[in-house]
Amino acid sequence: MDQENQSDTTASNFVAIDTGRLETFSEGVFAIAMTLLVIEISVPHIGNESEGTTLFGALIEEWPSYLAYVISFLGIGILWANHHNRFRYIARSDPGLIFLNTIFLMCVGFFPFSTALLSEYMRSAERTTAVAVYSGTLATPLIVFTLIWLYASRNYRLIDFNLDPALLRKMTRRYMLATALHIFTFALAFVSAPLSIALLVGLAMRLALPESETPPHTGGSQP
Amino acid sequence: MDQENQSDTTASNFVAIDTGRLETFSEGVFAIAMTLLVIEISVPHIGNESEGTTLFGALIEEWPSYLAYVISFLGIGILWANHHNRFRYIARSDPGLIFLNTIFLMCVGFFPFSTALLSEYMRSAERTTAVAVYSGTLATPLIVFTLIWLYASRNYRLIDFNLDPALLRKMTRRYMLATALHIFTFALAFVSAPLSIALLVGLAMRLALPESETPPHTGGSQP
Amino acid sequence: MDQENQSDTTASNFVAIDTGRLETFSEGVFAIAMTLLVIEISVPHIGNESEGTTLFGALIEEWPSYLAYVISFLGIGILWANHHNRFRYIARSDPGLIFLNTIFLMCVGFFPFSTALLSEYMRSAERTTAVAVYSGTLATPLIVFTLIWLYASRNYRLIDFNLDPALLRKMTRRYMLATALHIFTFALAFVSAPLSIALLVGLAMRLALPESETPPHTGGSQP
Amino acid sequence: MDQENQSDTTASNFVAIDTGRLETFSEGVFAIAMTLLVIEISVPHIGNESEGTTLFGALIEEWPSYLAYVISFLGIGILWANHHNRFRYIARSDPGLIFLNTIFLMCVGFFPFSTALLSEYMRSAERTTAVAVYSGTLATPLIVFTLIWLYASRNYRLIDFNLDPALLRKMTRRYMLATALHIFTFALAFVSAPLSIALLVGLAMRLALPESETPPHTGGSQP
Repeated sequence: MDQENQSDTTASNFVAIDTGRLETFSEGVFAIAMTLLVIEISVPHIGNESEGTTLFGALIEEWPSYLAYVISFLGIGILWANHHNRFRYIARSDPGLIFLNTIFLMCVGFFPFSTALLSEYMRSAERTTAVAVYSGTLATPLIVFTLIWLYASRNYRLIDFNLDPALLRKMTRRYMLATALHIFTFALAFVSAPLSIALLVGLAMRLALPESETPPHTGGSQP
Repeated sequence: MDQENQSDTTASNFVAIDTGRLETFSEGVFAIAMTLLVIEISVPHIGNESEGTTLFGALIEEWPSYLAYVISFLGIGILWANHHNRFRYIARSDPGLIFLNTIFLMCVGFFPFSTALLSEYMRSAERTTAVAVYSGTLATPLIVFTLIWLYASRNYRLIDFNLDPALLRKMTRRYMLATALHIFTFALAFVSAPLSIALLVGLAMRLALPESETPPHTGGSQP
Repeated sequence: MDQENQSDTTASNFVAIDTGRLETFSEGVFAIAMTLLVIEISVPHIGNESEGTTLFGALIEEWPSYLAYVISFLGIGILWANHHNRFRYIARSDPGLIFLNTIFLMCVGFFPFSTALLSEYMRSAERTTAVAVYSGTLATPLIVFTLIWLYASRNYRLIDFNLDPALLRKMTRRYMLATALHIFTFALAFVSAPLSIALLVGLAMRLALPESETPPHTGGSQP
Repeated sequence: MDQENQSDTTASNFVAIDTGRLETFSEGVFAIAMTLLVIEISVPHIGNESEGTTLFGALIEEWPSYLAYVISFLGIGILWANHHNRFRYIARSDPGLIFLNTIFLMCVGFFPFSTALLSEYMRSAERTTAVAVYSGTLATPLIVFTLIWLYASRNYRLIDFNLDPALLRKMTRRYMLATALHIFTFALAFVSAPLSIALLVGLAMRLALPESETPPHTGGSQP
């Protein structure tokens, strides 16, 4: 009995290290993508020739940059929180997970570009294109995220064996619904850019709400 | 009795991993925000046409960039040290903490912009605006920090249950005082920019001083 | 007997911390190199003077940037996965490993430059040079990687003592073959740029496939 | 006796977590500073008007950028390896260490600027200034490093209590010698830039060599 415990510990240690490196790596991409967002906000240049313009006025004029910064920072933050939540249930790693996770991070890494695009064209006649690209940038990682979940949870391939099947089904439904809503938002951008942005913000808030989930119960109660 | 110990270990492991990822992620944002600061320092271009200008002179001329770099690096360093100290007492994570921490990191990630603004306008007539924005960039994360502490410490929601109530009250008072002083500094920027900067530096030094706190005593001495 | 176990634990803890820091550090360079790739994609500027050009058209026009982003992100992702796999077998660190790993990371950190070069010259007459540089950027870290493996595995210098000698030989052969193929691809760029790129993509997919390797068996089964 | 062991474990865990966060954070700054170096290498623009210039020729022309990239990457790598080695002996953290470490990281974060400066002026008449700044950028963190070591090792303030006093003295002498040599190199830049660079490279190689040190012996041999 003592021996069994030991082998169990060895196995779980091996697994912990494995998803550990995957998570540390993903953490890095999330953190850098967020922090690079600030690069799109440029310091205004008030020359001698620009009469009547104050620095204060020039800074106010740049509001689309700040708005895009805030939306993207929170957007990536929500993706991070979801990643964080889901990897609590994913206990093992394999090449398929690493591949899908890389595709996911590639989408996260695209945010600084879409954010700069959104902040530059938010007030122009071309805003439909910019908002569509931005919505797509938000929708794509969520689709990949659903693929990650379906891949990892199928027949308990990579997730914690102690996860309650009912909770698993509930989570899967929730993730697929969120994905469907984001694809709808993406399509909506071609009809009405402001409505698409408003729905994006609403969805972001919904996703940020606590999930009424219980932590995985690890180990039986009776010896 | 042996069983109780085991369940206790499981619980604390779960928690450790949880705040662990939050801290690793925050670490990344701190480190990147600090390291991106250097981008605002531009290499001077000494062409053939600029007679009499040496590279040495051009580098000296850029002193506001170096000063802004040093202030911001230390400023983010102090925010990091505070984050580091406080999360030693925060033992559990929840969606509210993740949300507030994201807002906090959004403020930290804004530093490279404010720093570039400060270094460009430190010597111009527009320095009041630049210093006010900079003070605001320093004051805002401190306000969010106080919210994080109030949220986490209220009824021991997320902090270590072994933390002495007297110490907890002392820390809360300390954090609220620091916040009030920074809001005052922010307001002062509109009256006198140099005074506001001087007070910022003073406060930074005060915050950098060791806290006379004892580490959380984990576990009773007698079984 | 109990004492032996303890000393063994101490030793492996020491080692774990050691390669742990090396891996965390490498993780950071991988994550940053990947996320910096996005900087090469510039936001198109549609002025009043550019008649008939839509933002959508201008974005489509930038396809080499997106392609280069995707290839490089996956390329660094594959290098990461390989690093991840190999360091599962490397159990100890020494100055030689740290030096070789730094050279390896220096190659990884060069990707944003090669990617920007590739995306700018992919459609020009100078694409042979750009593709050759890019192939070289992909081949060089793989050569260094083989050197790391030969250094670490020679006489079990740094690798896990429990690794099966047959598996070790198989892995060594596999890594040397991959390296040889990449050097061939590099040479091919001077003959035909498109063929070289196609082979690169093919190799990338091969490397991304799961290795049919068994995890290191730690500890005997019978006490 | 069993109880003593347990309290000992608790204490060392606390300490491990503490320097752990400091090291993760430093890791991030090292990794980002290294990876940002690539930004100074610009993609050459071959327009229609530049007759007779090939991309290959333009890339060759940029050799000072590659040289500066390699020197700085290895330079930061060596600082990292030293940090890595020394923090193996530093077992506890305090505000003084955090402050000195932040100053140290501020120097590391300055490398991308000095590197860009060096690569731009390496071939110009102003190279003395550029090399002096670069030497200073390399010498300053080493001086701060010596301060960190003197601070941490004084009366075993923060270092491992099991560290052999003879080894400690040897390490202290070694670090102070390296610092003195770098200050000399810095001064030499004003006399002869090429000689200063050559000495820098030589010192870098010396520092990269394995230290003939034994790992800290943790725990007595007999119970």
